[in-house]
Amino acid sequence: MSYCSKLVTTLKPYIPGELPESPDIIKLNTNENPYPPSPKAIEAMRRAINDDLRLYPDPESRALKHAIAKRHGVDDDRVFAGNGSDEVLALSFLAFCDPDAPVRFFDITYSFYKVYASLFRLPANIIKLNDDFTVPLDKCLQNSGTLIFPNPNAPTTIALSSDEVRFILENNRDCVVIVDEAYSEFGSDTAIALLPEFENLLVVRTASKSHALAGIRVGYAIGSPALIKSLDCVKNCFNSYPVDRVAQAGAEASMYDDEYTAAVLEKIKRTRDRAVLKLREFGFACPDSSNNFLFVTHPKMNALDLAAELKRRRILVRHFPAERIDNHLRITVGTDEEMERLYSALGEIFS
Amino acid sequence: MSYCSKLVTTLKPYIPGELPESPDIIKLNTNENPYPPSPKAIEAMRRAINDDLRLYPDPESRALKHAIAKRHGVDDDRVFAGNGSDEVLALSFLAFCDPDAPVRFFDITYSFYKVYASLFRLPANIIKLNDDFTVPLDKCLQNSGTLIFPNPNAPTTIALSSDEVRFILENNRDCVVIVDEAYSEFGSDTAIALLPEFENLLVVRTASKSHALAGIRVGYAIGSPALIKSLDCVKNCFNSYPVDRVAQAGAEASMYDDEYTAAVLEKIKRTRDRAVLKLREFGFACPDSSNNFLFVTHPKMNALDLAAELKRRRILVRHFPAERIDNHLRITVGTDEEMERLYSALGEIFS
Repeated sequence: MSYCSKLVTTLKPYIPGELPESPDIIKLNTNENPYPPSPKAIEAMRRAINDDLRLYPDPESRALKHAIAKRHGVDDDRVFAGNGSDEVLALSFLAFCDPDAPVRFFDITYSFYKVYASLFRLPANIIKLNDDFTVPLDKCLQNSGTLIFPNPNAPTTIALSSDEVRFILENNRDCVVIVDEAYSEFGSDTAIALLPEFENLLVVRTASKSHALAGIRVGYAIGSPALIKSLDCVKNCFNSYPVDRVAQAGAEASMYDDEYTAAVLEKIKRTRDRAVLKLREFGFACPDSSNNFLFVTHPKMNALDLAAELKRRRILVRHFPAERIDNHLRITVGTDEEMERLYSALGEIFS
Repeated sequence: MSYCSKLVTTLKPYIPGELPESPDIIKLNTNENPYPPSPKAIEAMRRAINDDLRLYPDPESRALKHAIAKRHGVDDDRVFAGNGSDEVLALSFLAFCDPDAPVRFFDITYSFYKVYASLFRLPANIIKLNDDFTVPLDKCLQNSGTLIFPNPNAPTTIALSSDEVRFILENNRDCVVIVDEAYSEFGSDTAIALLPEFENLLVVRTASKSHALAGIRVGYAIGSPALIKSLDCVKNCFNSYPVDRVAQAGAEASMYDDEYTAAVLEKIKRTRDRAVLKLREFGFACPDSSNNFLFVTHPKMNALDLAAELKRRRILVRHFPAERIDNHLRITVGTDEEMERLYSALGEIFS
């Protein structure tokens, strides 16, 4: 007999990017930062490995939240911290969505949103992106039901300007608007500056990408104290201590090391902008990107075949088997050396 | 205007034990292990602090699960790992409970169960413990709706024998039975030996208490492959990577260091058994305990007053403002030195 809940039978889990068995594989499939974390973060984590690990972490992650607040120039009570931005997003669905007002997101977007909606039995209103994957602003103005979108959008890499986000916010004053800025430090406008004007705005961020700390699981949200209080309430009904001692110490130190983070971001952006040109030379359609990844399609070769050819050459990229984008690939920006290996592999494949 | 979900307005979060500001306070309020983690775990975590922290952890925690499986003599596909046993328990409510079959738990039990039920909008059937806080076995036989209980029960410290747990399982074959064994390594029977007989049994454990790793957040469940698969499905709909790289490494190493864990458990049990006698000398009603804490009440002094008097003397203990137990205190077993300080404080208070 089956012992699972009826809910489980309805779920289609998010599938994370493949984890290679061998270390010599070039991993351009999960948008990790190709550079190491800040040496100050490494040092802080080493210091945190001590006998105090027998003790629970601070359930409120106060020192970490303070560092995040300082970094973004906001008060501490505007910050929430969780186990990666995925946990922050999941808890947001519980904190801000109701069954009687469908949550709104794009048809092509971070695919976890749809999963959260099913997990928490929340109906969704899907907003169809334009044919060129730009956002149809006029379809984002219902002012009912939480609206959530990544900026830049994922995996399309297309970003909204600050003015466009403001326009959305001005027309959705009665519901929560969540801007998922996992990648915004790679070059798009941020909505953080709009926070004083909009009590209903929640900006979600992560230490995984720009801070190169995917391994320790820290995500955060910035919003009005009222929104943060709701998130805290839900978090304290789920798991008192989701961010461990080592993660709190590492992310805190990284938040203070702006110089290192800025230098890493600069390097990635340079490599990325060159990659856009290179991939276009190979015949790819590749829009400009303000992420640490590119979203490409090739007129002469099917995306799945291309991913397989790259994998044969020990390079992993990401393919999403979803409508409208199943002939696209998402390619993470690696180091210059890794990208050179990608270009020579593509040279072989298209020769 | 209020932007929180209707759900949030109904929630009463779990309140974790107080975190002292000063390091010289004796913390007997959150059932942490008074001894440090295994030196092998510390070493493994130190090794894990490296540039690979830029990469995501293994979402499946395979090496950790293998170590857990080895430790308990089960196959790897019978193990699930999560961010502390609280996350494992929360996900279990989603994986195994349905709105049409109320989840069952005791009126006096781990207070998070009630919180999970509200968070996921699941009705509950409350089973009232006997007046002496023993479990009324005849009231646990409905064979409908998931049944969840800690063994030993918390905070009462009263344990069911393996035969009693088997009796419950034999009479609940059509629903999931979750035995929360967070404290069972401190001396109670375990249900792990019953796993081959009962496909509907899930045993939940944690590295926080017996392994002295509360700071890194690792909990796990052992059950039939079908139950584990349901938990995996729910976890992959919530957060792909809840257990970070450092936590996976530390808990894995600790699972292999049986010798160290056994020695620590032995020390705590000796201190605990002596503490039971000492507290009875002070006039407390204090049942024998197979946990790392005691559950006491005093005929001459109100529990809240006593907690305040202890706090004035820089000793924290835990009080639960809940019906039937609001004149009790939960006291964690510390080191011998810490317990001596508790006894002298009690000597002062009752002099």
